[in-house]
Amino acid sequence: MDMKAPIRVYMTRKLIGVRPDDTVKRAGEIMIEFDIGSLVVVDDNNNVVGFLTRGDIIRRLVVPGLPNTTPVKEIMTKDLITMPADTPLRDVLDVMAKKGVKHILIEENGKIVGIFSITDLLEASRRKLETAIATE
Amino acid sequence: MDMKAPIRVYMTRKLIGVRPDDTVKRAGEIMIEFDIGSLVVVDDNNNVVGFLTRGDIIRRLVVPGLPNTTPVKEIMTKDLITMPADTPLRDVLDVMAKKGVKHILIEENGKIVGIFSITDLLEASRRKLETAIATE
Repeated sequence: MDMKAPIRVYMTRKLIGVRPDDTVKRAGEIMIEFDIGSLVVVDDNNNVVGFLTRGDIIRRLVVPGLPNTTPVKEIMTKDLITMPADTPLRDVLDVMAKKGVKHILIEENGKIVGIFSITDLLEASRRKLETAIATE
Repeated sequence: MDMKAPIRVYMTRKLIGVRPDDTVKRAGEIMIEFDIGSLVVVDDNNNVVGFLTRGDIIRRLVVPGLPNTTPVKEIMTKDLITMPADTPLRDVLDVMAKKGVKHILIEENGKIVGIFSITDLLEASRRKLETAIATE
């Protein structure tokens, strides 16, 4: 990993949205259909107002036992931060650590073009480490 | 990725278990506690009898609207295949493609020592590709 590389190198480009008033059941169906683990939540003016992961559904719907008719807005993650696509990876990680957030929206020319997740990065590092250990 | 490397290089070693009769609520709590997306399901004789992912919970509990008191055994994935830890990556992918499964248990000296997931591999490849594109 190159800490000086722009975040666009590491971000995920596959962004699929739901509305805040859509049910969690609908969000789950979309996750299954597109085989993805997270959705951006977009309002009627196409502003990103939140983010919903499989983890959010487990933590805030399944464990407390809420019905699948619960609107997405009630369990989505709202503490989203947006950073420009040319921000170095190092600076993005710095902001994530300071703010304690796991996802950052990536913006380019005034448009959200991707999302960067700390989980993805940890996964990449772990894999690199395991490979290094196994080839010693 | 080295297609001839043994699968132990790519497998995940973090295996955490639940019982078939545990509730999905309990499984969700364990996923949150350990910050993991999948659990092995182990019976009273310590045999692995299934596998449960966040995706299984979304697909087979949240979308159909089952209660979180549903036992894990009712929504777990049962079509598990075990392969030795020294199997080359290529052969593992071959078996996964032919059987249409997304996870393979990895065994060494008669013990399950890890799990290999196709999702992890796809993630690693995608990242590699995106990096290649961005550095062109």
